[in-house]
Amino acid sequence: MRWYVVASLLTVLTSSQGILTTLSQSNGGYKYDYATVPFLAEVFKLLVSSIFLSREMKNSPPPKMTTEWKSIRLYPIPSIIYLIHNNIQFATLTYVDTSSYQIMGNLKIVTTGILFRLFLKRKLSNLQWMAIVLLAVGTTTSQVKGCGEASCNSMFTSPIQGYMLGVLSACLSALAGVYTEFLMKKNNDSLYWQNVQLYTFGSIFNMGRLLLDDFKSGFERGAWWQRIFNGYSITTWLVVLNLGTTGLLVSWLMKYADNIVKVYSTSMAMLLTMLLSVFLFDFKPTVQLFLGILICMMSLHMYFAPPNTLVDLPLTTKDAPENLTEVSVDRRTVS
Amino acid sequence: MRWYVVASLLTVLTSSQGILTTLSQSNGGYKYDYATVPFLAEVFKLLVSSIFLSREMKNSPPPKMTTEWKSIRLYPIPSIIYLIHNNIQFATLTYVDTSSYQIMGNLKIVTTGILFRLFLKRKLSNLQWMAIVLLAVGTTTSQVKGCGEASCNSMFTSPIQGYMLGVLSACLSALAGVYTEFLMKKNNDSLYWQNVQLYTFGSIFNMGRLLLDDFKSGFERGAWWQRIFNGYSITTWLVVLNLGTTGLLVSWLMKYADNIVKVYSTSMAMLLTMLLSVFLFDFKPTVQLFLGILICMMSLHMYFAPPNTLVDLPLTTKDAPENLTEVSVDRRTVS
Repeated sequence: MRWYVVASLLTVLTSSQGILTTLSQSNGGYKYDYATVPFLAEVFKLLVSSIFLSREMKNSPPPKMTTEWKSIRLYPIPSIIYLIHNNIQFATLTYVDTSSYQIMGNLKIVTTGILFRLFLKRKLSNLQWMAIVLLAVGTTTSQVKGCGEASCNSMFTSPIQGYMLGVLSACLSALAGVYTEFLMKKNNDSLYWQNVQLYTFGSIFNMGRLLLDDFKSGFERGAWWQRIFNGYSITTWLVVLNLGTTGLLVSWLMKYADNIVKVYSTSMAMLLTMLLSVFLFDFKPTVQLFLGILICMMSLHMYFAPPNTLVDLPLTTKDAPENLTEVSVDRRTVS
Repeated sequence: MRWYVVASLLTVLTSSQGILTTLSQSNGGYKYDYATVPFLAEVFKLLVSSIFLSREMKNSPPPKMTTEWKSIRLYPIPSIIYLIHNNIQFATLTYVDTSSYQIMGNLKIVTTGILFRLFLKRKLSNLQWMAIVLLAVGTTTSQVKGCGEASCNSMFTSPIQGYMLGVLSACLSALAGVYTEFLMKKNNDSLYWQNVQLYTFGSIFNMGRLLLDDFKSGFERGAWWQRIFNGYSITTWLVVLNLGTTGLLVSWLMKYADNIVKVYSTSMAMLLTMLLSVFLFDFKPTVQLFLGILICMMSLHMYFAPPNTLVDLPLTTKDAPENLTEVSVDRRTVS
């Protein structure tokens, strides 16, 4: 499968996730316990990956599986980073309002680029750096509060701690992504075996969270396993299935493409959701949404189009013909 | 003089123009007749160009001056285009509100690019086209009405005629610029001689406008030459001087640089004015102003930076070393 097919599928599914979640609400609230959704999605991903792995194990040669503890112990790390991230997110929201938080969330695009460069040592051209910044600018533009919108908090008036936590949150989110990419690519183990490890820990951590919630509430609603499917409708199940599938696609992209592709997919999904909301939920279209989409489209083209289709041949006499072949070989290994 | 020095000077002066004009108002209105300002600016430009031309004529060899009627008769054309443009502008404003009109004004950036390509046959790389669109997107972003702003007309609700006239207006404005560039570059006549022709017609057309205003009002305030300096203050004179100087700089750019450079200068000036207004007139800074500045800065870099600093060398084995020298010569003549 080509990466851009997977990336497009991820965009469509991530976008439907927002819409399905909205549809699964009744009277503006959830009838079911929302914390059960990510847990069930982890279990779904674990099941699917296990099935694929067992099928793969019947083949010859069998899939490559590293089973040393030295390797396995790395797989809970993304879950741990997300755990810290979720708590920081919670702390940030005590300082800043949700719309400032949403705007700051776009910083994740830039921090992913930076960690991608520092941690995974991947080189980006200046144009690609500009494209990444433009993607963040474009998503932010589309979120700028429109003229005459109901809630109208003035921007950048929260205490400094709020912004510092927001930056930390963006760094942690990027770190989780970059670390997962590192894990998936560090050896050529079977994708399904890597997934099984990742989602086993994911399921455990999510289960831990449900249990912790129960302890906090003193088990007044009973234990989580007794009420796990309470209030579930078809739509809720679709939300679970969708979340699980997007997770599997992200995993695939981390192994065969990279974090930047994922960031583009999810940013485009955000814009697609806003565009679909115009038709589905009578969301008022704004000039800034239209501008944001234009900016992100150009960013996408700047990042992924072959450089020679973008600029005239930048040849100067300095670029001696001798090293021509070398340069073209370099490019081939990079792309 | 290097073109970027002239372009930067144009940015600073165009930006001060907005601020000086605001400062020259008293109680939100003009004490003087605003129509006298462009007339006096034309006269100022004519005087300055005449002085420089007469100095140049004492040199040997004398400046090149085409004095055939076949050439001179082309010089009123930019004034005529602007005259039509001003009337269309007036008609547009009967259909759309001023903020929609301002937003549509950014279309001029894109139409200039298109006419520059069609009329002057100048090639732009795909990246430069994207940069031009981004410049228009950036200036538009900075103008998006902020959350909770006083006047809040909903966008794109005017009759279709309004938008069609707006597009026509953008085309005419671009045409005037592109035609002036064609005039200035069509032969290697002295810049000052070309200016003298341009501004003689400019002065005549502006005088005609003042006279027409007098006829319309039935000379109730007396003839324009009797009240031309009424209500003039030092600031008003500075506005005249500033407008005249920016005109001379634009003329220089049309001959030695091009329309795209001018468009960048004036767009940057608009952003600079908004930024300075934050300090001078307690204008409330918005997220969209900040985003617009970021977008325009990146557009500037994309358009003017040498392509080889933006992308990795896009060499493929197809680009045979044989035509290497040719290509580099091509580039040098273009830039």
